[in-house]
Amino acid sequence: MTDLPADALPGFSSFTLDRCDDLRADPDALAALIASPEARLILMRGLDPVADDARLARVPLPHDARIEEHILLGKDASGTPLFAALAQGALPHGAQFAPRVWDLAASLSPEELSLYGAARSLVDWHARHGFCAVCGGPTVAQRAGWGRRCGQCDAEHFPRVDPVVIMLAEHQGRVLLGRQPRFPARRYSALAGFVEPGETIEGAVTRELFEEAGVCVRNVRYVMSQPWPFPSSLMIACTAEAEDDAIRLDEKELEHAFWASADDVRAAFAGDDTAPFIAPPAMAVAHHLLRHWLESQG
Amino acid sequence: MTDLPADALPGFSSFTLDRCDDLRADPDALAALIASPEARLILMRGLDPVADDARLARVPLPHDARIEEHILLGKDASGTPLFAALAQGALPHGAQFAPRVWDLAASLSPEELSLYGAARSLVDWHARHGFCAVCGGPTVAQRAGWGRRCGQCDAEHFPRVDPVVIMLAEHQGRVLLGRQPRFPARRYSALAGFVEPGETIEGAVTRELFEEAGVCVRNVRYVMSQPWPFPSSLMIACTAEAEDDAIRLDEKELEHAFWASADDVRAAFAGDDTAPFIAPPAMAVAHHLLRHWLESQG
Repeated sequence: MTDLPADALPGFSSFTLDRCDDLRADPDALAALIASPEARLILMRGLDPVADDARLARVPLPHDARIEEHILLGKDASGTPLFAALAQGALPHGAQFAPRVWDLAASLSPEELSLYGAARSLVDWHARHGFCAVCGGPTVAQRAGWGRRCGQCDAEHFPRVDPVVIMLAEHQGRVLLGRQPRFPARRYSALAGFVEPGETIEGAVTRELFEEAGVCVRNVRYVMSQPWPFPSSLMIACTAEAEDDAIRLDEKELEHAFWASADDVRAAFAGDDTAPFIAPPAMAVAHHLLRHWLESQG
Repeated sequence: MTDLPADALPGFSSFTLDRCDDLRADPDALAALIASPEARLILMRGLDPVADDARLARVPLPHDARIEEHILLGKDASGTPLFAALAQGALPHGAQFAPRVWDLAASLSPEELSLYGAARSLVDWHARHGFCAVCGGPTVAQRAGWGRRCGQCDAEHFPRVDPVVIMLAEHQGRVLLGRQPRFPARRYSALAGFVEPGETIEGAVTRELFEEAGVCVRNVRYVMSQPWPFPSSLMIACTAEAEDDAIRLDEKELEHAFWASADDVRAAFAGDDTAPFIAPPAMAVAHHLLRHWLESQG
């Protein structure tokens, strides 16, 4: 799927900074980066983005900025180091606050939305990991914000990334779509679930489709992946062949599920009033997974 | 890759139990399962497996076994519920102790090795998560061992699965192999690294190959996945096309790297003394990734 042009990618999938992994354990290099006049801080309000037209708002760092209180997100194409702050202070006068990240998706470039996604996942992880899971002691940020260390037992902790499978079961030219009660009216999407310890991607796809819809599948195929920063999932999008089209719904997980034809999916993408469902938005990998399947239907 | 027969899978990839996700939040069902005379405890010594010939050692549970101190691994094909204990007690008289998991790989069936892998990841996660990362308070197991809850702030915590990319860069009929200083003599393998927040699988493959070997790639292709229980990785195996064959080694990560031809890889799999390297063992996904590539070379 990497043959697709960048604008055909789902949201949050176009991170373009050099992550500077080699500098994260180099205190001198980090001190120089955060003190450089070119360095910029990506503004956030809590976990929410702060927009400056099509870009995330950037400000110079305070002259006394400490690396222990910042995340080095990376360097952009012109070599500018970009940081996020572990604790968000007051916004500068006139900064524009975006109340919902979804409102920004249409205005930010794919690269800026992806930068926000990475920053959001990391800021959120730090906010929820002030203490050591091993001993309960207080932790401090290290490695330029790409880890924390316990001051009591010295255990190291790394930002979490949770793999999630999201998949379309196919059967005779139709795909399985479902809706959760929390979805907007008429919205349907691909089924999804967390990969568990001891499980392959293929095993998780097979288990989730059986648990949520009673559908048995084989021939799981990987299609594409997407980082999803709510809080820090790695979406792994797949297709699979269903053995038959019987549905046995797990009503704790799904409100309804049905098999959509290629015409149904085309009508949904066209925004047709008579379409049997509303398609997931282009920011979601499910949208791209459905388009991928539709293209395979000729 | 799910078309391959089960014996062509890497280690830990053949988990066959019904994970009983629907019962994990059902206290009455869990109480009945753990009290049932058919229920069995998979013995471990710390994180190490305890073997009974080709199987993991199983014993009946004590009559006063509490679900809060056990993990429900699932039900086997005959409906037998299998548990692991969060705290390992003394081994029964005569139980055989396997000092190294590697010694077991050859003797355990793929299904038993996979059961051990899931149990190990979960037991280890509980042992390292007795406290709440949010507030530092003590946590207790819940959901039949598939989560913990903080007694102080009520935060829920779920077992961690860390996605790792492992990949072969290809260039004109050769693949990039590297060795870390800790490897056995002459052992080489595929390069690998953790997926970071804000990153796609394809992005992680591209970044790691550039960071560790200075190799630029395109056309990343997913091949297969494997759970790796040391402590709880999801290995995501890929190939990618290198733009050229120049290597710029990161000597903090790798001791050496080179481009291996199909003949080199064939010689290594044959155990030939003149092979330029020793291949990774069949338990490792790198072994299967190399075989997959070799098959594509005709």
